Formats: sequence, C-alpha cells, structure tokens
Amino acid sequence: MTHTGHELLLEMLVIFVCAKLLGELFERLALPAVLGEILAGVLLGPSLLAWVAPSETINAIAGIGAIFLLFTVGLATHPKDLVKVGGRSLQVAVLGVVAPFGLGFAYLALRGEPAHEATFVAAATVATSVGITARVLADLKALQTRVARVILGAAVFDDILGMVLLAVVSGLAASGGVNWLQLGVLTAEAVAFALFMILVGPRVIHRVRPGVKKLSIQNAPLVLALALCLGLSVAASSIGMAAIIGAFFAGLIFADYSEEWNLYPRVNAINEFLAPFFFFAMGAKLDLRAFTPEVGLVAAVVTLLAVVSKVGGCGLPVLREGWRDALKVGLGMTPRGEVALIIALIGLQMGMISQRAYAIVIVMTVVTTLLPLPLLRALFRRDAAHSSELSS
Amino acid sequence: MTHTGHELLLEMLVIFVCAKLLGELFERLALPAVLGEILAGVLLGPSLLAWVAPSETINAIAGIGAIFLLFTVGLATHPKDLVKVGGRSLQVAVLGVVAPFGLGFAYLALRGEPAHEATFVAAATVATSVGITARVLADLKALQTRVARVILGAAVFDDILGMVLLAVVSGLAASGGVNWLQLGVLTAEAVAFALFMILVGPRVIHRVRPGVKKLSIQNAPLVLALALCLGLSVAASSIGMAAIIGAFFAGLIFADYSEEWNLYPRVNAINEFLAPFFFFAMGAKLDLRAFTPEVGLVAAVVTLLAVVSKVGGCGLPVLREGWRDALKVGLGMTPRGEVALIIALIGLQMGMISQRAYAIVIVMTVVTTLLPLPLLRALFRRDAAHSSELSS
Repeated sequence: MTHTGHELLLEMLVIFVCAKLLGELFERLALPAVLGEILAGVLLGPSLLAWVAPSETINAIAGIGAIFLLFTVGLATHPKDLVKVGGRSLQVAVLGVVAPFGLGFAYLALRGEPAHEATFVAAATVATSVGITARVLADLKALQTRVARVILGAAVFDDILGMVLLAVVSGLAASGGVNWLQLGVLTAEAVAFALFMILVGPRVIHRVRPGVKKLSIQNAPLVLALALCLGLSVAASSIGMAAIIGAFFAGLIFADYSEEWNLYPRVNAINEFLAPFFFFAMGAKLDLRAFTPEVGLVAAVVTLLAVVSKVGGCGLPVLREGWRDALKVGLGMTPRGEVALIIALIGLQMGMISQRAYAIVIVMTVVTTLLPLPLLRALFRRDAAHSSELSS
Repeated sequence: MTHTGHELLLEMLVIFVCAKLLGELFERLALPAVLGEILAGVLLGPSLLAWVAPSETINAIAGIGAIFLLFTVGLATHPKDLVKVGGRSLQVAVLGVVAPFGLGFAYLALRGEPAHEATFVAAATVATSVGITARVLADLKALQTRVARVILGAAVFDDILGMVLLAVVSGLAASGGVNWLQLGVLTAEAVAFALFMILVGPRVIHRVRPGVKKLSIQNAPLVLALALCLGLSVAASSIGMAAIIGAFFAGLIFADYSEEWNLYPRVNAINEFLAPFFFFAMGAKLDLRAFTPEVGLVAAVVTLLAVVSKVGGCGLPVLREGWRDALKVGLGMTPRGEVALIIALIGLQMGMISQRAYAIVIVMTVVTTLLPLPLLRALFRRDAAHSSELSS
C-alpha cells in the first residue's frame, strides 16, 4: 500500500463506520437503516460538515456497490413465486407502475419542466421498495396472510416492470431525442431482454449446472454468479441501458439456485461491504442549497402524487375484497427505496436531471418510506386475527 | 453509471473472467489457481499482449483485495490451535523463518545489492503458504497425521512471524535509515502489536459479544468485523506498518468467532471477488524485460536458497523423528505464496526494490510453489499407511 493507499483506507473507514453508526441509530428508532446511511453522507459531505468529499475511487466503489445492491435484490426475487400469487398481484403491480408514472409525468410536464427531467423523475417514483413493508409484516407475524402475499408478489412484478421502464427511459436519454417509433423499439427491446432473462436464463443455468459441479476452482458457483453479474452489467451498459439492470437480471437468473449454492448470504456480504459507500455517496451528492421554497413545493406535490397514485393504483384491483385490504395493499406498496435513488443518480450522472430534481426524488423517497409505516402497523395490528382467518 | 462506469465495468469483467479461466486451467493441471491468475496479468498486461493496463481504480481495488486476502488468512488462523501443536511447531516455524531470511540476506548483501533491497527480498522468502500443502495432504487423506499437524501448526506461527518481520522491515524502509536502536524499537513494537492482538484482541471480542447480539442492524457481526478490518489496516498503516498487517490481525482476532458468526464463508466471498484483481495487477506489474541472464542467475540462486533453507530449517527440529518425516515437514513448508508476493509489491510501491528484484521474488514464489508438489505427493503416498499408525 502506498501513501495514496493509506488515504483511501482512511476514507473508506470513516465512510463505512459513520454510515453503519447512523444506520444503527435509525434502526433503533424503528426507521430504515438505509436512510441513516444516506444521512451520514449528507452530514459529512460537502453540503454540511465537508469532512469527506468522496474521491473518484470512492465513487467507483459506490458504483460497484449499486451493482451488487441490485444483484442482491435480483437474487431474492424468485420468478417462480410469481406463478403462485398469480393475476391479482400482476394487476396491483401494473396499475401501481402506470399510475405514479402517469401522474408524476403529467404534473411535471404541465409545470413546464423539460421532458427528459419529467420522464426521469416520474420513472423514479415507480419502483416500490418492499423491504420495509416486509419487515413490518414479519414483525406483526402477518407474512402468511393473503394481503401480504399479494403485496410480495406484486413487488416482484414491480421490480421487473421498474427495470424495464428504467431501460426504456435511460435508452431514450442516451439517444437524445424521443419519437414514437424509437419508444416502441426500446420498449420491445427492454421487454424482450426481461423475458429472455426470466424465461431462458434459469434454464441455461440448469443446463450448465452439472458442468459447474465439475469445475476445479474453489467456490465455482459463486465465481460463475459474479462473472455473470459483471457480464450482464457490461452487456446492459453496452446496449445503452443502465448497468444495474443487467446486475438485477443476473440475480434473477440465479435466484432459484441461490439456496442450493448458498449464494445469497455470500453475495449479500459483498453488498454489506460495498452498499454503504453507495448510500453515503448518494447523500454526499445532495446539494442542500437546491432546497428553495419553490423546490420544496414541487417536492411536496410530487411526494403527494407518489403516495396517492400507489395507494390508489395498487389498492384498486383489491377493492372488491374490502377497502381495508385495498388500503393495506396500497400502503404496503407505497415505500420507495434504492431503485428510486439509483434512477435519480443515473439521471444526475447522465445530465438528464438537475440538482433540484435529484433533491425532489430524495425527499419523495424518504417521505414515502416513513409515512406509511405507522398506518400500516395500525391497520395490520387491528386486523391481525381477521386476516389470518382469510389466509389459506 | 456514467461512461467511465462502463469502462471500469468492462475492465473488471475482462480481468475477473481471464483470471478465473486461467485459474481453472491451472487447477486442472494440478497447479495452484493463484499462479494462473498472476499469469493472466502477465499475458494481458503491458509486458505482453497489452490488452489491459490496470487503471488507478483497478489498482485501488487490487489493494483492497490484498487487505481482504490477509483478513481471510487471519480468520483461518486460530491462535488456540497453537497450544495443541506446541513446541515442535514453534521450533519448525522459527528456524524456517530465520534460515531463509539469513541466507537470502547474506547472499544478496555479499553480491553488493543495496541493504534495503536485500532486506525486502529476504523478507519475501520467509512466509510459507501452507494452502497448497494442505490440499495435497487433504487429497492423500493425511491431514490427521502427526507430520501434517506439525506443518499446519508451524504455518500458523510462520504467518505471525512473517507479519512481525514485515512490520519491522516496512517500518525500517519508511523511516529511511537503519540503526540498531531503531531496529530494536521497531521489533519490540511489532512483537507487542502481535502479542496484543493475539492475547487481548479475542478477549475484547468476547466481552463485546453480548452487545453485538443486541445491535439492530442486519449482519451486525459481519459489519463489526469489516469495520475492525478497515480500522486495524488504517492503524497499522498510520504507525508505518503495512496495512495488510492490521488486516491479518483483525482476522486473527475474529478467528475463534468465525464459526459462531458464520464469518469465514462471507468474508471469503468478498475475497473471491476482490483477490483476482490483486493477482492480476501483480502479474501486470511484472516487467518481462527485467529478465536479463544476470537476473535469471540471481533468481535461480535466491530460489535455491529459499528451498534449501526451508527444507533444512524446518526439517532440522524434526530430524530425530527420522529423515523421512523431516523431509516431509521441510518440503511441506517450502511453498511460498500470497504473502511473499504482497511483500514484494509493497517493496516495489515504496520504491525499496527494483523491477529486477520484483521479478526475482515472483520466480522464487512460482518455483517454490511448484517444485515440492510431486516430491511431497510421492513421500506421503508411500508412507501413508506408516504415518497413520504414528498419529494419535
């Protein structure tokens, strides 16, 4: 290690420890740890204390962290679970994607924001982060209820739809202009990419499985998974999509073999190490001076639309099962998370959105994550007995 | 991911896949995978094909890879195992460190090489890499023999002695001059550091263990281990030692809790991901033009001394148990590996050794790793029945 090596290690130590300390503090306050890690970046970053200005290497590590974050999300997304929850979850997911994107885009376009900025911000409001809801459901021992299974199933579809939408949006942004023909081609490409990964990918792994067993290197399945994660990230990036889309689908392909090959805990260890740098860098990139009163107003409206559109869009298909279940599903699908933040960061890095829009997405993510928690707890707690009767 | 992000990912993909492919090829030829990963760097690096010239970011990732490599080695080094194998292993380790260092230093100093270069190269010849021997022993089902236990025990002492020696050597190099007082102070510091980590470290972990269980963040023990790994690396680097020394001792501290907290497979996953970049970068740094006939001659002598000194130094304490067992222990302790390479790289980065000396250490490592394998296999195979009778 040279002296540069020493500085890098010191920077990594400070970022990792501060992010994890604030993560721990947030968890103790029953708030998501990831918000604490972002706050660490805001506090120590250039906007406030200016102790740590992430170097180029830290930003590169943060980028690899985002890859592993989505790889981990993919690994935990089992395509075969979709069959079980069936049509209702698909309806919830589709309406829960269309409504926020449509409302968000319409509002920003009517305000006169540039089309690419409106598109990126609207795309960022689409993806549900079901982790927080799942923890609330687990705490209340409600994971086996029908509502919980509809939510978790819809979240799988939602992840995939979000990735397809991001592929289209980033493809449009990379090529500059927008016309209907190109939009159609990009959408077809993205859907084909997704379907190929979901339908063909796992079969390929199934085919090569006997060969993997014969490999002589240690931890061959893990090495194969890591190589495919890097490979599909590069592939996605080469055809103009975001690299994380490839990483997500690489995870999806291995999801059904994750248990047999003990992949999840080991890939998640890499994620545990790298992701704090991503969230910290994300917080450090937030320019607090972007928060003018006007931006605050737009952020409030975007956030309100993000909540209303998810509660309405996801609740609607469940309405005939009673407004309580509809509200539970809607609120359970409301929290946004990592994917929203990554889409905003990609937009910022591509020059597609401004610091203002980046700040708006962060506010939207934080509020949609925090707001539904007490309501969801109250609803499920009251109905716990009732819901468990309905579960099959 | 920006466009720089795409280039970095592409570079990572090429390095990771090529390193692992050559690793697999080497394993199939019954050679150590790590040599294949280094060869990938030599082949694709600036010296030959010049396809990949590791960027600054890749070199930073390689440096973090070295940290995790030594962290993993430490995690697999259980201080409490030392008590079982006792005095004989300690004798084997001490003589097996003193003899190579003494012979190597004497030869290079007599040839008129600068003192700092002679010191670094001699230090690089010290550390046994027992992994290859352990695999041969496991293949031959001889891990439970007394000879195997003496070797594995000596390897633990050898790791620790090697780290103490590296601490002294890098401390001397950082401060420039060398005098006996300073040598004494540095040695005392390094020994105190090592003893503190071995004796006090695990007790501190034992004390904080109930607190770790109460932490709210996910994977709290892993996060604590990663934080301590970064922390002790920075600490070692701050007091003028190599960062990897801190990482090694961080691993040692957690070794006894590795099973309870499932640390090893998860830390090793990070290592599996990062280490190939380290070995590739190591190969890419090898300048093949440094191999003049004169360097080849010096390399041959240094390698010969490295073999003779280990076989003699490690065999001597076992000689009264018969020359066959002495030869087995000596040959089993002969392979060098990662630590030798890391010491050479640190020397190169600190400007303490030349490209010539770097090339010599790589030759020495490769030959000492390959040479003993067939002999060791033959000796153990013939004596398998006999040795197992002696084992208790």
